[in-house]
Order: sequence, then structure tokens, then C-alpha cells
Amino acid sequence: MALLECVPNFSEGRRTEVIEAIAAAITAEDVCLLDYSADPDHNRSVFTFIGAPNPVSEAMFRAAAVAIREIDMTAHSGVHPRIGAVDVVPFVPLRDMSMSDSVELAWDFGARAAQAFNIPVYAYGYAALRSDRENLANIRRGEYEYLREAITNPQKQPDWGPPHIGSAGAMMVGARGPLIAYNVYLNTDDVKIAKAIAAAVREVGGGLKAVRALGLLVGGRAQVSMNIVDFRVTPLSVLMQRLEHEASIRGAKLHEGELIGLVPQTALNGAGLSFLQLPETDRAPILEARVGAMTGDYREILFQ
Amino acid sequence: MALLECVPNFSEGRRTEVIEAIAAAITAEDVCLLDYSADPDHNRSVFTFIGAPNPVSEAMFRAAAVAIREIDMTAHSGVHPRIGAVDVVPFVPLRDMSMSDSVELAWDFGARAAQAFNIPVYAYGYAALRSDRENLANIRRGEYEYLREAITNPQKQPDWGPPHIGSAGAMMVGARGPLIAYNVYLNTDDVKIAKAIAAAVREVGGGLKAVRALGLLVGGRAQVSMNIVDFRVTPLSVLMQRLEHEASIRGAKLHEGELIGLVPQTALNGAGLSFLQLPETDRAPILEARVGAMTGDYREILFQ
Repeated sequence: MALLECVPNFSEGRRTEVIEAIAAAITAEDVCLLDYSADPDHNRSVFTFIGAPNPVSEAMFRAAAVAIREIDMTAHSGVHPRIGAVDVVPFVPLRDMSMSDSVELAWDFGARAAQAFNIPVYAYGYAALRSDRENLANIRRGEYEYLREAITNPQKQPDWGPPHIGSAGAMMVGARGPLIAYNVYLNTDDVKIAKAIAAAVREVGGGLKAVRALGLLVGGRAQVSMNIVDFRVTPLSVLMQRLEHEASIRGAKLHEGELIGLVPQTALNGAGLSFLQLPETDRAPILEARVGAMTGDYREILFQ
Repeated sequence: MALLECVPNFSEGRRTEVIEAIAAAITAEDVCLLDYSADPDHNRSVFTFIGAPNPVSEAMFRAAAVAIREIDMTAHSGVHPRIGAVDVVPFVPLRDMSMSDSVELAWDFGARAAQAFNIPVYAYGYAALRSDRENLANIRRGEYEYLREAITNPQKQPDWGPPHIGSAGAMMVGARGPLIAYNVYLNTDDVKIAKAIAAAVREVGGGLKAVRALGLLVGGRAQVSMNIVDFRVTPLSVLMQRLEHEASIRGAKLHEGELIGLVPQTALNGAGLSFLQLPETDRAPILEARVGAMTGDYREILFQ
């Protein structure tokens, strides 16, 4: 059975009742909400849900309707960049479906949402229709406030929907592989250090491939907020090593990590092996994985 | 279906043909050999295999027959302590069987092997018949050379088999939970440092609970060789932190890790979360685990 994941980011991280209403809109018999979390400083929430492709697309549509109704971008503030109430909608093929299946589904969803909600929609990631829109940071540059003016500029023309922006802002819809949203708090409240570390580790500017990073002030602490777009290109072990180095040369330390959403098992295995100073291998020496490969039963082994 | 694991340790780590003959003896249609490895300095090999209880016991019996025929303890030397050709035979219940099922199976196996091979056999771990034999280090103290003389001592009387020792030595048979056999090489050839670190981290002597440790010289490098008998009692993160501390106060560094056999997924997850400075939680934020809990399908997710 084809299994699709959707990990939408909404521009609401404070009003619990709106976050719960979005969760309720996603929840259905044929969809599993695996995880969600919200941050008041980012003023943003992230949901992870899975199911067959059509039920996932329908759940996403219901959630978008709630967010567009409830979130007023003209009154929104938060430290994380954003252009709309339903800021990013990534579709991730998990099993028995291809990336091109997900691209098609993203295109269908983008076109449908643009028409139904009368908002501008941009395609990004593998679903991008223009090469400068593959990286969503390019689409989001200047954020909602800038896009309101600039959307009539031919460069900013949306892929679907009207070339003007209302209180729900614009939406980015895409297809992508597994992404790890990982933040690190530093032992300082100096956001300049977080910004400098982010600039050093991110791919744009010569850092680590497949890493995007921002320096933010969250809960009074400096935070490096990251997306690892492809953990096979830059493993978590390489990222951590680099973060520690970049922090230490600036007199700072990594204080605490934070995962937004879920991490693929393979990526976490790599981190665990690295922690134990073992080689990161494709055939990891893990009991359950070996048992599963032999017996077809990959359940956790329950010891007494 | 009941699934049992067996992780025997044999006193042969040099002669490839003997190690391969043991592997061949284990291999059968109803048994899966998951992993094996050998070390010439330890002069020891470790095999991990699984299956239903009876086939696992039969495979272990066939392997023991090969080792007892091929290994002469009077000519054996190696840095790892040992008392017999088939040094340790642990049975580990994985699924749909209890620890007491495994204890019974260990008792049956011990009695059968003692009679068939005419060797002394000691029960250890959960299968121990005397409380001072729970920890196999107590049974092994003084090793083969000492036991040859001391076996007539009532304290050293075997649980099954004759109170005298031939060239195959004695055997320890037990039941236990998952054990992590993890070694760390230091950046020094000074085995005294490894011995001091081992003494500091092991439970006996006031170190970490459920940790056993020896300092050895392996391949010209100082090695701390460990068994984590219960990773829920002492997580790998706590062990690594302590190892790093004990090494650094002695002017040494951890250079490289080594896993003998396999690590349970839950233990490796804890190590990975700790590496990312995330809290170690029972409900870890792992995509496959959440998908598996929802869909019943725990296979690795294969991304494009």
C-alpha cells in the first residue's frame, strides 16, 4: 500500500485552540497524526501525518481551511521566516510510491488549494516549476510583508492562484525526501553567535551540503535552527562535529538539542554509532534489524 | 512464535578454518546466523544466532561438538579470560518466550552437554544454581589453568559433569537479557591506563551498575573491554560520559569503539538521542517507530 507523509508548517505557535483545531481537522480514520508541536517564539507549528495518498491530501486540505480561516498574517509576528498561514506543505513518499507520484500529488494539491482558498501558491522542492524555487528559502525571502508588495513583480508570480495577497498570505507546496528539523540551543543569549554559526554551517555560503540554518533568539536563548535536507549527504555526526567546532571558536557551547517532528531511524542509527565511535555502515550491527531481515518481523524486541 | 537468541563465545580467534567450521555447524534451515566475529589477541570468537528454542539448542550442540574436538585449552593463550573451548553459552529470550523458559532450556542444554562431552558445566546468569555463580566472572576467576587444579575443591564443583578437566576445559551455560559487548581502544599502548579505567567504570569496586570491564592490550593498543549487562540500568550515554572522564583524568582519549555482536535498537536509539543532546525517552521521535506503531509495519522506510 502506498504510504505518504505530509509535514505542514503553520504560522501559529501560540493559540492552543487554533493548533488543536488544525490537529482535529487532520485526524480521520484513514490518516494517522504521528506528531505535532508548536513554538511560541517561532510562532509556528509543525504536524506530521501519514496515510494513503488521497486521504493525506484530503486531511491537508481540511487543515489548510482551518488555518486560513483562523490565522491573520497581517497581525502575525515570530522569529521564523514565513509567507503564509499555511506556510509550507511538503509531501514525502514513504513506501510503495515514487517521488514523481508525490510531485504530481503536490501539483494537484497546489492548484486545488489556490483555487479553493483564492491564495497564491508556489511549488518548491522536487515539485518546483522554476529552478530558483527548488530551495524554499528563495521563495520566502523578504517574507509575507515584502511579498505583499512584490507579488506583482514577474519574478514573484505564483505558480497557481492570484497575483495578490490577503490575510492568509501565500502557500508553498512541494515534494521532498526525509528532512530532519533539528535545532540547537547555545549556552548564550547572544543571537549574533547563533547567526554566525548558522552562516558557517549552512550550504549557501560554503558550509555543509544539504544543510539550511538560521540563527534565532528563542525563549531568551540563542538557537541555531536547522533543516538537514538529506542526511545521507551530510550525516548528523558531521553536522554535530561542525556545530561544536563553530560554537567553540566563538566561545560558546551547544547546550541542548531539539527535534521538530521525527527523525528517520537510519539517521538516528548513524548518530548512535558515531556516539559510540563505531563506523557508520549501511549494514548496522543492530539486533532488531538483523532479526527483521531474517524473519520479516521488524517489531521491537521486548526483553523481560 | 517463540524466538530465542544464543551468543556463544569460543576460545578460538586465530584459526579461520575452525571458526568457519563452527559457523557451518550452526548454519541450518531453521536457524539464522546473524553475526560472528573473532579477535586474534582475545583468541576468541563470538557468534549470534536465532531461531525457535529447539533448533537453537541443537545448533549450539553441534557447534560445541566442533569446538570441543578442535580446541586444545592446554595450548591456548589469549588476553581474554576463559575456562573452556566453549567458554560461555548464553540463551536470550527475544519474543514470545519468558526468561524462565530460557532458564529451563539452559539447564537442559547444560546437563546434556556435560554428559555428551564429559566436561564440567557451570550454570550462570538467571540460570545460576548458586548465588555466587550469577556473575560469570566469579566462575572464571583464575581461568582454565587454575580450574584444572581447583575443580576438586567443593566450592568449584560443577553443576553438571565430572569434577575433572580435560583439554576442552569447562563450559558456562546461562540465560540472560540483552547484553552489549562494547570495547573502546585508547590512544595509548599503556595497558595500565586501560586497567585503571576498567576498574573505575565496572560495578564491582563501585563503578557503574550492570557494567563489567577489563583492561587489555589488543593489537598493540590499550583496550577497555566491556559488557553492559543491562543497558536500561546504565545507558550507553552514561557509560560514554564516564569513560571519557576516566580517560581524560589519566591523560588518555577514547580513540575508537568496537561492538562484538549486535546492539539492541533501543540502546542505540538512546545513544543517538544523547549524541544530538535530546532527551532519552521511551517514546522516541523516530519516524519508522511511529509509523510501525500505527500501521503494524516496522520495516525500514526506503527513501528515493
